[in-house]
Amino acid sequence: MRAIVYIRLKTEVLDPQGQAIESALKNLGENNINNIRQGKLIEMDIEAKNIEEAEEKIEKITKSLLANTVIEEYSIEIS
Amino acid sequence: MRAIVYIRLKTEVLDPQGQAIESALKNLGENNINNIRQGKLIEMDIEAKNIEEAEEKIEKITKSLLANTVIEEYSIEIS
Repeated sequence: MRAIVYIRLKTEVLDPQGQAIESALKNLGENNINNIRQGKLIEMDIEAKNIEEAEEKIEKITKSLLANTVIEEYSIEIS
Repeated sequence: MRAIVYIRLKTEVLDPQGQAIESALKNLGENNINNIRQGKLIEMDIEAKNIEEAEEKIEKITKSLLANTVIEEYSIEIS
């Protein structure tokens, strides 16, 4: 199974990377794009008996290793 | 409109971040997760007359600023 974990900064957390992109765009004259936020995505192959087991495993590694749940939120997609 | 640009390293490009995650997982005893690749996602609000215009604008800034098309590929989602 192929899984994707999407990790985003929580809304209340400042995003300096997003702000840097936004100010670069303003410098290029692009004023109609706002509220830019940068996140990450992590894709992986996972061997599991079924989707539930895969989801449980990925949730576990996301909490322990991939995301910092103090400042980040995540969503998991399995196909 | 809210747009998301997903940026991934091309398949033939080495991904040291993905490899680092993979070896960390192996050290934790997790051997059923493989082929880990890390990418990024950039979310933004865009003002445009219609989806076509938004898509065109975002494609332009993605090529010029967000993605390095030599080593990265991207996809755009607008909602």
